[in-house]
Amino acid sequence: MRVIRIGILGFGTVGEGTYRMLVDNADEVFAKTAARFEVKRVGVRDLTKPRSISQDLITDDLKSIVTDPEIDVVLELMGGEEPANKMVQLALENGKHVVTANKELIAKHGSRLINFAKDSGLDLHFEAAVGGGIPVVQPLKHQLAGNDVIKIMGILNGTTNYILTQMEEQGADFADALAEAQVKGYAEADPTADVDGFDTMYKISILAAISFGKQIPLEKVHREGIRSVSAADMHYAKHFGYKIKLLGICEETGEGEVLVRVHPTLVPLEHQIARVSGVYNALWLHGDFVGDLMFSGRGAGADPTASAVVGDLIDVARNVVAGGNGSAIPYGEGMQVAKMGDLETRYYVRFEVADRPGTLGEIATAFSRRQVGLAQMEMITKTGGLGEIAFMTHVCRESDFGTAIQEVARLGSVSKLEGWFRVEE
Amino acid sequence: MRVIRIGILGFGTVGEGTYRMLVDNADEVFAKTAARFEVKRVGVRDLTKPRSISQDLITDDLKSIVTDPEIDVVLELMGGEEPANKMVQLALENGKHVVTANKELIAKHGSRLINFAKDSGLDLHFEAAVGGGIPVVQPLKHQLAGNDVIKIMGILNGTTNYILTQMEEQGADFADALAEAQVKGYAEADPTADVDGFDTMYKISILAAISFGKQIPLEKVHREGIRSVSAADMHYAKHFGYKIKLLGICEETGEGEVLVRVHPTLVPLEHQIARVSGVYNALWLHGDFVGDLMFSGRGAGADPTASAVVGDLIDVARNVVAGGNGSAIPYGEGMQVAKMGDLETRYYVRFEVADRPGTLGEIATAFSRRQVGLAQMEMITKTGGLGEIAFMTHVCRESDFGTAIQEVARLGSVSKLEGWFRVEE
Repeated sequence: MRVIRIGILGFGTVGEGTYRMLVDNADEVFAKTAARFEVKRVGVRDLTKPRSISQDLITDDLKSIVTDPEIDVVLELMGGEEPANKMVQLALENGKHVVTANKELIAKHGSRLINFAKDSGLDLHFEAAVGGGIPVVQPLKHQLAGNDVIKIMGILNGTTNYILTQMEEQGADFADALAEAQVKGYAEADPTADVDGFDTMYKISILAAISFGKQIPLEKVHREGIRSVSAADMHYAKHFGYKIKLLGICEETGEGEVLVRVHPTLVPLEHQIARVSGVYNALWLHGDFVGDLMFSGRGAGADPTASAVVGDLIDVARNVVAGGNGSAIPYGEGMQVAKMGDLETRYYVRFEVADRPGTLGEIATAFSRRQVGLAQMEMITKTGGLGEIAFMTHVCRESDFGTAIQEVARLGSVSKLEGWFRVEE
Repeated sequence: MRVIRIGILGFGTVGEGTYRMLVDNADEVFAKTAARFEVKRVGVRDLTKPRSISQDLITDDLKSIVTDPEIDVVLELMGGEEPANKMVQLALENGKHVVTANKELIAKHGSRLINFAKDSGLDLHFEAAVGGGIPVVQPLKHQLAGNDVIKIMGILNGTTNYILTQMEEQGADFADALAEAQVKGYAEADPTADVDGFDTMYKISILAAISFGKQIPLEKVHREGIRSVSAADMHYAKHFGYKIKLLGICEETGEGEVLVRVHPTLVPLEHQIARVSGVYNALWLHGDFVGDLMFSGRGAGADPTASAVVGDLIDVARNVVAGGNGSAIPYGEGMQVAKMGDLETRYYVRFEVADRPGTLGEIATAFSRRQVGLAQMEMITKTGGLGEIAFMTHVCRESDFGTAIQEVARLGSVSKLEGWFRVEE
């Protein structure tokens, strides 16, 4: 019987979950691989923290793990850019297969690391980096690989989807919904990575790199979080027949050029992705042959993430047992990224206005000067001689829309541009 | 540049779609594999039928294709048990990798063929056999392989889901909905394979074999089609908060024992799978670590099926280019299959009754004698002194429920057992 020796870097919830799954489902794993996994070393930052595993396994010398000649596979479950990047590189240089759940690492250094693994005949898998337990990374590399992928839209962050769902169902404002999510453990004390869209940016960039063949320069990804979404926007969106979701979106905009973006988005109520609530994640994609596809499930948490890590480990084990040459699937660097100004879509926008005759006419005229057609409108009267107007536009160019709303905001009858969001149908 | 030579068996819609995808997306495929595919021979039954490809490629001598020393990969796209079974076996014996879309072949002969491929260092892939373009077969073998799969439920046949959706939306009866589906090309002139549940049976049996590790003896799979579903059942189901879907279901019922079944099923309106309409397919599964997952998309048709076939071909090509040892993932034979009588679930049942005092009491008493608790009830008065009563039961044993409804049907106040279905929550 083949024994495959594992070194784990990082023993937070995902590390613990993976360890537990390897123990609990050892027979399941053996049946699939004809191999047994043995966790040989676990690398942590803080040696003094109490752990659920034998103290003998634990070290804070990560380098001793990735260079240990007895270790076959390194599981990188620390997260963050460094020292993960250096340790994974070193592990590969030392002939170890690598499985990682680290979206930031792959989004920033995937191309270099995967190519290095491929050239070294090693596996480098990262199913857990996107969508938690939902199989999306490998299906894009394998079962869907023959398609020209036209577009991908994903709810890729459970924390923000939970907050938006609470806002929508309870009419709560962002700050209150965030506070509640923090109390329940769905959001961290410093929620920036989630609510400002970094997490989603890394994930959609990885999917774009796999689908379109080149790593995405992250500085060219348009990224907006959900802090700007208000209970009022939720209300108008619903009135117009939409929900507001934080989506990661990538699409081909021309030969060898893609647009990658993360922002709160109005999605029609009847779209499958609008029905994904709470901490669930979902990925919708359209390929030229496969048509529309949708995957949904638990995108985070110890157990679903462990499911993906162990799935990757099983593939590594099969490859090791079969004496294979490594199955990393590389992509290049330097993807051309389109400008947001060239986006053509529908928009939602809301203004605070003077509640007096002529206001609507002035606004509509200002929009029409920039070729922005209005499709739906909702007006309410507020106190103090003020009102509120929300519009849905027809499809127009983002640069035209941007100019138009600035011009509208300067009208005498308009006191404030309250907010605006993009729409996906 | 590596050229991989393909022989195609069968050139119906799937064969043509696959050929078209290989031509249209040749650059996509090359980018993923560093190989070019060349279709060398196409085997058909009827040489005189006009074809969209060069007559030079075509032969009706299938054996000449699977034994051709210049062919690297055989695509089996004929469907049906024979001659597909003999030809795939012969192809493997002649050292060819095989990709097939044939659910009947894999459900009946998968274990033998996959083991033969594995032992010969060859690939045998069949992603297209279940769920058309939706990646389900390979994700179960790879990304989800570490899970103890608890249950799988699938809408795996687009024809029956289209018919049921029409019945539900238009109040049509089965015969009318079938006729309309035939006119639109969604159902075949002989609809047996679809409407009597054979297609779904093959597919759920394949998923069960992968998930639980042994081929399912098909004669032990409980199979019911949708001919027994009426507009009246649709109406009552909706009243109780359910839709009726033809589901393939497999679940572990004990150590090394599974229950595999195909039947019309009441599914709660709020369940994700209830929202899958028309020709779309969906797969819902629950694994011990991954939790709930759902995949949906186009489960049939030339293009989605081609997507899955070409995805498999890309994996074969990568393996050939890398000099790999074959990546077929075998399973055994002789799965223990549980008896339907031991199933415990809720049930829906409808009777025609005498519209007179005492009827309801007699029925309720008869049910209670068999420990079948009633949860919901709907009664209407018909003409001629008759009425109709529909019930939803609490969870009970199928054998008790079966005895109870036979006893109820024999009551003097009951004129007819109109129909009954199982429920999944």
